[in-house]
Amino acid sequence: MPFAQDESELPSPSSGSSSSGVTVTGSHPGDRYVRYVPANDLPLKPVGARYYVADVTAPKEGFGRLLYRLERVLIGRQLSWAEAKHERLNKVRALAILSSDAISSTAYATEEALRILVLAGLVGYSAMLSVGIAIVLLIAIVAFSYSQTIMAYPEGGGTYHVTLENLGKYPGLVAASALLIDYTMTVAVSISSGVAAVTSAFPSLYPYRVEIAVAAIAFITLVNLRGVRESGTVFVLPTYAFIVSMYVLLGLGFAAWLGILPLHPHPVRYPMPEAVQPLTLFLILRAFASGSSALTGVEAIANGIPIFKEPQTRNARITLVWMAGILATIFFGIHILTYHFHLVPSDEETIVSQLARTVVGESPFYYFIQAATAGILFLAAETAFADFPRLSYLLARDRFLPHHFRFQGDRLAFNTGILVLGVLTSLLVIIKQASVTALIPLYAVGAFSAFTFSQTGMVVHWWRMPDRHRHIHSMVINGIGAVATGIATIVIIITKFVYGAWMVIIIVPLLVAMMAAINHHYRSVAEQLRLSPIELRQRTKRPIRRSTTAVVPIASLNRASYWALEYARMIARDVTAVHVAVEPESGEILRKRWEEAGLDIPLVIVESPYRELIGPLVAVIEKIHREKGCPFLTVVIPEFVPAHWWERILHTQTAWRLRRVLSHIPDIAITGVPYHLVR
Amino acid sequence: MPFAQDESELPSPSSGSSSSGVTVTGSHPGDRYVRYVPANDLPLKPVGARYYVADVTAPKEGFGRLLYRLERVLIGRQLSWAEAKHERLNKVRALAILSSDAISSTAYATEEALRILVLAGLVGYSAMLSVGIAIVLLIAIVAFSYSQTIMAYPEGGGTYHVTLENLGKYPGLVAASALLIDYTMTVAVSISSGVAAVTSAFPSLYPYRVEIAVAAIAFITLVNLRGVRESGTVFVLPTYAFIVSMYVLLGLGFAAWLGILPLHPHPVRYPMPEAVQPLTLFLILRAFASGSSALTGVEAIANGIPIFKEPQTRNARITLVWMAGILATIFFGIHILTYHFHLVPSDEETIVSQLARTVVGESPFYYFIQAATAGILFLAAETAFADFPRLSYLLARDRFLPHHFRFQGDRLAFNTGILVLGVLTSLLVIIKQASVTALIPLYAVGAFSAFTFSQTGMVVHWWRMPDRHRHIHSMVINGIGAVATGIATIVIIITKFVYGAWMVIIIVPLLVAMMAAINHHYRSVAEQLRLSPIELRQRTKRPIRRSTTAVVPIASLNRASYWALEYARMIARDVTAVHVAVEPESGEILRKRWEEAGLDIPLVIVESPYRELIGPLVAVIEKIHREKGCPFLTVVIPEFVPAHWWERILHTQTAWRLRRVLSHIPDIAITGVPYHLVR
Repeated sequence: MPFAQDESELPSPSSGSSSSGVTVTGSHPGDRYVRYVPANDLPLKPVGARYYVADVTAPKEGFGRLLYRLERVLIGRQLSWAEAKHERLNKVRALAILSSDAISSTAYATEEALRILVLAGLVGYSAMLSVGIAIVLLIAIVAFSYSQTIMAYPEGGGTYHVTLENLGKYPGLVAASALLIDYTMTVAVSISSGVAAVTSAFPSLYPYRVEIAVAAIAFITLVNLRGVRESGTVFVLPTYAFIVSMYVLLGLGFAAWLGILPLHPHPVRYPMPEAVQPLTLFLILRAFASGSSALTGVEAIANGIPIFKEPQTRNARITLVWMAGILATIFFGIHILTYHFHLVPSDEETIVSQLARTVVGESPFYYFIQAATAGILFLAAETAFADFPRLSYLLARDRFLPHHFRFQGDRLAFNTGILVLGVLTSLLVIIKQASVTALIPLYAVGAFSAFTFSQTGMVVHWWRMPDRHRHIHSMVINGIGAVATGIATIVIIITKFVYGAWMVIIIVPLLVAMMAAINHHYRSVAEQLRLSPIELRQRTKRPIRRSTTAVVPIASLNRASYWALEYARMIARDVTAVHVAVEPESGEILRKRWEEAGLDIPLVIVESPYRELIGPLVAVIEKIHREKGCPFLTVVIPEFVPAHWWERILHTQTAWRLRRVLSHIPDIAITGVPYHLVR
Repeated sequence: MPFAQDESELPSPSSGSSSSGVTVTGSHPGDRYVRYVPANDLPLKPVGARYYVADVTAPKEGFGRLLYRLERVLIGRQLSWAEAKHERLNKVRALAILSSDAISSTAYATEEALRILVLAGLVGYSAMLSVGIAIVLLIAIVAFSYSQTIMAYPEGGGTYHVTLENLGKYPGLVAASALLIDYTMTVAVSISSGVAAVTSAFPSLYPYRVEIAVAAIAFITLVNLRGVRESGTVFVLPTYAFIVSMYVLLGLGFAAWLGILPLHPHPVRYPMPEAVQPLTLFLILRAFASGSSALTGVEAIANGIPIFKEPQTRNARITLVWMAGILATIFFGIHILTYHFHLVPSDEETIVSQLARTVVGESPFYYFIQAATAGILFLAAETAFADFPRLSYLLARDRFLPHHFRFQGDRLAFNTGILVLGVLTSLLVIIKQASVTALIPLYAVGAFSAFTFSQTGMVVHWWRMPDRHRHIHSMVINGIGAVATGIATIVIIITKFVYGAWMVIIIVPLLVAMMAAINHHYRSVAEQLRLSPIELRQRTKRPIRRSTTAVVPIASLNRASYWALEYARMIARDVTAVHVAVEPESGEILRKRWEEAGLDIPLVIVESPYRELIGPLVAVIEKIHREKGCPFLTVVIPEFVPAHWWERILHTQTAWRLRRVLSHIPDIAITGVPYHLVR
């Protein structure tokens, strides 16, 4: 019984309470006010004798049971609070898991930059190296900056958290919106790129890339609903497979280039497109903006400090350095070799695939490289499936998103966030036809604005420290980082504006406005509902002064409505019955029956020649309410419940409609008295 | 004020009641049990001093008001009971309205028969006259038979009514199903044929025929929701326009043929299709089955006796003879001339159009003929829009269809039936691409089976009369009618089976089963709810013996839940609060607050480590119920109502879900106590 094993998680029962009996007085002063009643029925089991503890239940029979079993097979056994696991990882595993997003972006960064440059034709290649060097510099700066963040936030410095704390509510919301977009785009771009790796190796699958991508997203969604143990080996392998195969590939490529090995690479030759633009600075900046997608994911280590073994910050910083180094070298290696072989971007084959085929031909190793590429990209998408729901949980906890994002499902996963992400990314992939080039403009904006917010927040963080003079160099590093990423953000926005970045510019303010409105609403509700302890005491001391008045809408006199009349008499002294006649004779018919029965409950009849029911009924209820001096009114609505669910549509849902309208009137309680039909 | 004008429709107030005061005793013995409270507030107005009478209300402001004004413009002013009109018509008007369905079918009957015959190529024409004569004979037989029906059912002998009364429940349901299909098909075929008449005159519209047809259906639906005054001139003109122009056309045609007038008709020549089948008896029977669609609508006069002026049956019979004569002559005239000119059926032009072009060329008269044809066909569709909702009303009144079909909307029209018909026929027209040929197989089956049922029912009706020997000749006529239409039905089913009639064979049993199930359910409900006057008296004499026990689910202690606790104490002595803790600490937090407040209501806490809410809550409610000896339990659910409607989605609908589950448990009343938020 899982809930009994880890009792340290549950509030401890006070000693001295017996395990049977109706009301138990324990040693706790308030005990006589809490009812401890033991019971042996499933699904409720007593623990000690104070509480009930609920266990899981399966439906007994029928379709419900079938669905339940299916869910268990797909998703697994339900987990209780006590089973939430928190493991710590060593640096090797942590590197694999946390750097998959960053390192996987080398699969498309060079290619996207080159796509822009070849718009200038052959002459575009001359700018390649400059762009590559700029990106590598940026990697270094950002890595250094996040190293500072690690030191400042040893519990994990998420961008949202850092910004909210240091820059305030609205910057925090903007950063959060940028992050949500970033994570969504990470999934879309990574999945699309992974599918591109597959279709490069198997070109016959190219027409089905959208379907494959959506299927991959559905699979990852399901896996996450199961609650992924992210430390598993299955998560470590793809990253190292990719890293190792990339280094081997790059090594062979350079060896061939420098003549060290007697390899004869056959460069893959796609036709060079015509030059359609001159090689302007703007074009080079556009290329830089696309290539800077290499940096996406660099913040992951700073966010994920809690999973490191002790000493956490030191291990995290070391891993960060490793990650930055691997990222920079693989990126620049691909970049240089692509330049050397003058590979041409194509829709049907990725640059990495072309490079691999150039150096090693269509050998088994080539297929291994493609598989590893796809693997690390899916892994990158998976990490976003962990980050997005976690962020939406934090936002919901801070009351910026609806409650629903807080709830953990059967497997302790944040179901709402996972499902929302799965649906959003599926739609995105379908609309953009799984094209990385179409998705890149939205991707880079979100990522780099998040960087900028994070770094700026860090500068403010150091500034606010009482001993700020001791942190000058941290401030400078983060300042350079903020400026560099800020410039990059602006460049990206300007160069990508017409290609899709404008959407982000529109979505972010909308998201921020929505989150602020949600927050305002929740606070307003909390404020209006709050009952301070003092007020509570005062109210409890006050005697209950009044009784309720009942009104019973009656359509016709039958068992169900008579039941409602009896209930009304049970709870109130003053009972009035109301009948709205939508057909001409029904009022008279009811009145006669009322007399024959000798009922001593007053009957009010409303003729409704325009055949309206709810309007006149509510109007007369309000009238009665006013006439009786506005007591607390209870409207007792007779209902009958058919024996089978499909029969419900045969009965107009008047009770529900009435209830909805009445719920808008203050001081009215609405009671449904269901009469159950057996056949 | 409409409701005051026709007071004969309302129950008359008893004399002697004053028009002011709170409780009034009138001369009626039971008066002191009925509350007569005058008031001057709109929308309720007192009449005399006994009742309230509801008036119509318009929303005061905002979007609701806009919608309301739009509805008034489209549909018109609301009508009260008193405004239902019942006019009587003379024979000329009655003929126009009631025979439009029958006479309009001449527009397609010949064509459909010929389409089958030309499958045998040129030789098919030789069978045309035989088929035509058979159809004319059938018209005579059926007309004679319905003349008997008119005499037997002077209040109007609808097929449903006749069959139900004479042959029993299931035959009645089969007949009703056949009629519903017949009316639906009438709309689909008539609209499609009308559109074909238009596209024959304006061939460029042919690709848009489906859109035009759906627009026509939408228009007719809207017009019927307004509540059509079917005696209007706009309904009389198209029929006579068609009849007159047909006679003129046929007259000219015959005159040209016989050389009486020096006209030189230029027969329209579409290419004769290749012979694809031999001219077998089966083919001829198929052609007959298609051509027999000429008879659809012949029963209308027997159904519509109430609209005739006195003496009703005599006028109806005379009009029936006129109708049959006009139908037979126009049909046979078109038939013979088509044969003489050897016109060939084509998808792009109707036979009637070809005939008109042949005889009078593309003169203004030709366009008039097409317009009149389209007009009478739309009129035929309109009559089905009166018949279908009326039949569905009768079926709902007899409890074979859901209640909703009984209700009259603002304009005293049967809204549900009208809308259902509009949607069904639109779908049919879209699926069959507004092709009359594709729709005919389903049409004829419904119509002829309805004829057969009606005639058979009449035979039984005469047989059951005590003086049956006096009605021998009526029995014989109806018998011949039943046999003839029965044979025709079988021929149609066999010959059209694979072309669509099988659908009708499947739909009718399904409809019958559904209606029988609905009837069974409604009777079962009525039986279980019925409270006889004796039982009622007994119950009223019995004192109310018990009070209720309350259970209040509490999530946290705030104003809304405290309100619910106060209400519970108002209505019950024994109150228990229940808290389900989905997060580990919430139970303890609540318990502490409970103590601090000094609340003397017992609190039960359910730990739910699997984070389920509704299941454990309902389980503990049931447990408490059992433990207290099953009293009548009231579950008082705290609710809070946000100030704005869009805010509701920010709050999980737990109250609604709980209510739904609890409503399945007997002896539990469910009360919602709404706390209203102002901001």
